[in-house]
Amino acid sequence: MSTVQVKAYGTEAADASLNQMAISRRKPLAHDVEIDIIYCGVCHSDLHTARNEWHGTIYPCVPGHEIVGRIVSVGDHVHKFKVGDTVGVGCIVDSCRECQYCKEGLEQFCEPGMTGTYGSPDKYIPNQQTYGGYSERIVVDENYILRIPSNLDLAATAPLLCAGITTYSPLRHWNVGHGKSVGIVGIGGLGHMGIKIAKAMGAHVVAFTTSQSKFDEAQRLGADEVVLSKDPEQMKKYRGKLHFILDAVSAEHDINAYMSLLRVDGSLALVGAPEQPLPVAAFSVIVGRKSFAGSMIGGIAETQEMLDFCGEHNIVSDIEMINIDNINEAYERLLKGDVKYRFVIDMASLKNKQ
Amino acid sequence: MSTVQVKAYGTEAADASLNQMAISRRKPLAHDVEIDIIYCGVCHSDLHTARNEWHGTIYPCVPGHEIVGRIVSVGDHVHKFKVGDTVGVGCIVDSCRECQYCKEGLEQFCEPGMTGTYGSPDKYIPNQQTYGGYSERIVVDENYILRIPSNLDLAATAPLLCAGITTYSPLRHWNVGHGKSVGIVGIGGLGHMGIKIAKAMGAHVVAFTTSQSKFDEAQRLGADEVVLSKDPEQMKKYRGKLHFILDAVSAEHDINAYMSLLRVDGSLALVGAPEQPLPVAAFSVIVGRKSFAGSMIGGIAETQEMLDFCGEHNIVSDIEMINIDNINEAYERLLKGDVKYRFVIDMASLKNKQ
Repeated sequence: MSTVQVKAYGTEAADASLNQMAISRRKPLAHDVEIDIIYCGVCHSDLHTARNEWHGTIYPCVPGHEIVGRIVSVGDHVHKFKVGDTVGVGCIVDSCRECQYCKEGLEQFCEPGMTGTYGSPDKYIPNQQTYGGYSERIVVDENYILRIPSNLDLAATAPLLCAGITTYSPLRHWNVGHGKSVGIVGIGGLGHMGIKIAKAMGAHVVAFTTSQSKFDEAQRLGADEVVLSKDPEQMKKYRGKLHFILDAVSAEHDINAYMSLLRVDGSLALVGAPEQPLPVAAFSVIVGRKSFAGSMIGGIAETQEMLDFCGEHNIVSDIEMINIDNINEAYERLLKGDVKYRFVIDMASLKNKQ
Repeated sequence: MSTVQVKAYGTEAADASLNQMAISRRKPLAHDVEIDIIYCGVCHSDLHTARNEWHGTIYPCVPGHEIVGRIVSVGDHVHKFKVGDTVGVGCIVDSCRECQYCKEGLEQFCEPGMTGTYGSPDKYIPNQQTYGGYSERIVVDENYILRIPSNLDLAATAPLLCAGITTYSPLRHWNVGHGKSVGIVGIGGLGHMGIKIAKAMGAHVVAFTTSQSKFDEAQRLGADEVVLSKDPEQMKKYRGKLHFILDAVSAEHDINAYMSLLRVDGSLALVGAPEQPLPVAAFSVIVGRKSFAGSMIGGIAETQEMLDFCGEHNIVSDIEMINIDNINEAYERLLKGDVKYRFVIDMASLKNKQ
């Protein structure tokens, strides 16, 4: 396998900071496109993986799965894209393509396991894991590449590749739209996208936050109503009123309090991943035939559908741009929730380095 | 309100045994039918309520919501039934009839609250609660009466009115049928009906039990496969294989072990009601977009549909007949799981008393 060296930013150990390093990328094969990365969003998963908080991280680790850029070369058999196209890469760069779930467009649930954009065994380069978007360039099979609508701000589009699809997919799956009342719990990187997308789908959006300071923010983002979840009186008013709840909270929280807000046959879908199991009372699901559910990113076709939807409704993420030098500081701020609402790395700051 | 006294069996306090007592029933109104009770099944809810284990029991308490009998008189405007008809009464004897859920046939989720067969405020007799089927006769509005298929053994049909609909409704709601693999967890009063009904719906039925002694039992009831849930090796073989799981266990148990057996988009529905909340891991629902759900009895139209289905497929409960004198002993045996699989009271044993 012929490879080239590219500049990247990654870490050698769970307790090490991120630093510049050189990594190998394969030269484009017949179905590959080579992308010059312009921006890469910073997802909380990047931090979890870099620090081995989900265990099993292989080092060196180069995070980043909210990638946008321009195609600089294509393999001989690439038909869907051409040099110069503005494209994106999300959390999935390959999958088996043959199992029942891949055939249904649910590559995120590929039976033998999808190839994640970083940290998965590389199918092409022996004994190497995949490296993510904190780098100059990436080479990806054209079937896992997304087209970016031309009307969207490119930097602010990067987070759609993970935060966007993570919220769009469950909102679509549980039929959110006109005539539906939808709760969005937690106004962060995921939640702020959830508000925008649910609103664009035509739903009546009720945002839930523990923080008085996010009241105005949630309204600005498009919420029709905002509820301070710590106030039992405010919560009580929504008992049995919501068709669906998107729960984007990663910390411990009272699931049963939210389940009580669902109507009969309502579902709450978790997209955050609290570390400890959530205690769900039997009567929270039995009375009203309710579901406590979850959702994980989305397939390739649905990710394209999400991008097209965002193009049509002019939806992007609220971002704060950083240089690659600031990534370690950005991780610290991310831990404190000190970002509105997604960091995006300007990858020129890496390319300009020695 | 004109009333008559009838013989019943009930309790005056949480720690008292059940004894004979006299209760008032209204004389049939225009839309009422009066039923001579022939058999009444013994549901675990009867015991929970008699002993105030769910709190809020009003005494005296006369349990029983698996009622079958014959109509002995009808009100002037009753059109659906006539004297002599063999009918049943389940868990619901009235509801508001006007809310969105009543209109959808989901009377069990009536917004102002359904009128339970026992222990609800009586709509007609002031300051009295409803009294259940451990009695000679009952008077019920014709809209909450079920028709019993004539080919079924009447005593063994009584438990269908609660155990039957409690399992039929979720199996129907989650589209169990041909080509679907369905797990039934817990082989007791509910679970044994779940196996029979899921099998009749055409599903491939996998029964899960903690007890080696129930292996043959589960097969006899119709299970295609039986898994000893305490054996991790047996459990592992079903990982990602089941479309739906009906969980009829009321004791504490490891929900995440069962969630891992579901396919992508699979649901587990709880019909038992463990006292303590069940800890559900985020990754149990996120990976595979799975749902931890619940279900509670079923509406009136669906209960009739279940009875007709059971008539067509010759499905009844496995029962042990008792006299009313043995009810306190039966409760003790119920607590030990010592019944295959439902006690049914021969109500002649009450009528023959002084």
